[in-house]
Amino acid sequence: MEKTKLALLGCGNVGQGLLQIIHDKKVDVNVVAISDFKLGSVFCSDGLSVSKILDLLKEGKTLEDYNCNPSCCQGVMHKGWDVLETIENCGADIVAEMTFTDLKTAEPATSYIEAALKKGMHVTTSNKGPTALNYKKLSKLADANGVKFLIEGTVMSGTPVFNLARETFAGCDIKEVKGILNGTTNYILAQMENEGWSYEAALKKAQELGYAEADPTADVEGIDALAKVVILSNVLLGASIKPEDVPREGISKITLADVENAAKEGMRYKLIGSTKLENGKIIASVKPIKLPLSDPLTGVGGANNALTFDTDLLGEVTIQGPGAGRIETGFSILVDILKIMNS
Amino acid sequence: MEKTKLALLGCGNVGQGLLQIIHDKKVDVNVVAISDFKLGSVFCSDGLSVSKILDLLKEGKTLEDYNCNPSCCQGVMHKGWDVLETIENCGADIVAEMTFTDLKTAEPATSYIEAALKKGMHVTTSNKGPTALNYKKLSKLADANGVKFLIEGTVMSGTPVFNLARETFAGCDIKEVKGILNGTTNYILAQMENEGWSYEAALKKAQELGYAEADPTADVEGIDALAKVVILSNVLLGASIKPEDVPREGISKITLADVENAAKEGMRYKLIGSTKLENGKIIASVKPIKLPLSDPLTGVGGANNALTFDTDLLGEVTIQGPGAGRIETGFSILVDILKIMNS
Repeated sequence: MEKTKLALLGCGNVGQGLLQIIHDKKVDVNVVAISDFKLGSVFCSDGLSVSKILDLLKEGKTLEDYNCNPSCCQGVMHKGWDVLETIENCGADIVAEMTFTDLKTAEPATSYIEAALKKGMHVTTSNKGPTALNYKKLSKLADANGVKFLIEGTVMSGTPVFNLARETFAGCDIKEVKGILNGTTNYILAQMENEGWSYEAALKKAQELGYAEADPTADVEGIDALAKVVILSNVLLGASIKPEDVPREGISKITLADVENAAKEGMRYKLIGSTKLENGKIIASVKPIKLPLSDPLTGVGGANNALTFDTDLLGEVTIQGPGAGRIETGFSILVDILKIMNS
Repeated sequence: MEKTKLALLGCGNVGQGLLQIIHDKKVDVNVVAISDFKLGSVFCSDGLSVSKILDLLKEGKTLEDYNCNPSCCQGVMHKGWDVLETIENCGADIVAEMTFTDLKTAEPATSYIEAALKKGMHVTTSNKGPTALNYKKLSKLADANGVKFLIEGTVMSGTPVFNLARETFAGCDIKEVKGILNGTTNYILAQMENEGWSYEAALKKAQELGYAEADPTADVEGIDALAKVVILSNVLLGASIKPEDVPREGISKITLADVENAAKEGMRYKLIGSTKLENGKIIASVKPIKLPLSDPLTGVGGANNALTFDTDLLGEVTIQGPGAGRIETGFSILVDILKIMNS
């Protein structure tokens, strides 16, 4: 049987993490094409050498510096295709969409995913933009073309969320999901409580460690968590909500005094994203909540993420794990690829 | 297509929980036979009425009080088969084995499972005995007969463990699993710390609440947790260990002073079952361990269970949820049935 052909759209942190895993684990796929805004683009119908690609990128070179072996592909290797040209011409079975996230327009990722699905390719993505804004539309398009559209990495990186719900809660109804969906804000709140730092000092440290961007707005104002709440609502609860439908409050107004007073009461502030179905209506929000220490979410330290599923048959089940990372998010793409290959 | 035919071996708490779920959720299976030591046995080739069975049991009657409708099954209904006769004659596609647990002999459950597998029936069980003592043998027998042998409910009831590992960590290597595998001991330790009770007082309360048996040995001496550690080792880490290979220490020697001193150091005692693969050798144990409050397992309160998976690609992922319960364990059987039906 011919190996499954894979194309990577975007080859930044996540794409390189995925390539590393494919290489280290000898995953049985044929990477036929990679196209990246910054690193250029390369295609070989016989399959690219993943180790050679990793070496090139490690040396600071680009994908366009890649050359096939003389025995390979009879000269059908091609360089320079942009992402849409790659989708059009690469003949992959599965496309891994890992281009940059735009939470306002969800472009160009949405157009890439649409083009791939229309070509009859399965798509896996870790991109919150198209998933938060266009999940229903893309999911229907996948169905219409008889292919899968999988999104494990969009919430909590590789920590199981959608696979957990689909594969291990089958038969349960999920009534509510709530959790810690942003590692940066969790780190800041934890440092304020554990080290007695001000919000500003904790944010500065998070920026030094690379957890927070120079402009931390998307994290600290809850915009990143909100995109994930929209995804969870639309994918797990069958809602059709948009980001603007969800009330949002970040952590930038939480003071050290707030955190210390909560601790005195045996409580702890966490930035909680939640969504539930009540009388057929979705009630979703992102806001800092003071939780009793008996709540499993209060035990989530550092930059970790966690999600509590409230189900009819099992009650509450909480999963905690990494919420970001090159290999962790690369794994989320791998697990989707394996799901497609084994279906 | 003909409906999947299901036989229930054992109809105590778990079996009745499963029947309740099948009824409430209108699960698309045909329950053709139920055989129970205490409640008798009934078979109908056209399928039993689950609601009628539930009503009978609610009224304190037995399975032998069941009667088909006049239009049903042309008189092939049969009562009084023992479990082996039921397996031999019921023609089910799937057998749910929920008879009593014997951790020393694993019988008669092992014989039941073998008989069903040899008849080409899929088997799901929540029974720790046959799984702890005979997993490899039964698993091979299932393979040889082209059927599945699923065991989700044997550890942490319906909280996902084996489905989690198989379906959501595919592509990861699991290096270690460790966790809180017994709710009774977790409740006792939590009450000692939170209420300042002695071990004896906390045990008494656990007995009053029905968490602990009149003879609490299996729980408090770690025997129940040990069976689960053996199952986790053999199923998730590919080991072939027996209960006697695992060092075991319970919580009966933990004093209130131990718990209070740990709390002063910012630590908390938990009864931890753990197993890991190190240089090709399994290192497993059950013992009380003083953990720092930063460990996610310290946040597990009441009679809840939790398991931390240490994986190569995701690092540590922890799942927390119910560890027992009629509906919760019934669900573990349902999720296995759905897995078999959809495979």
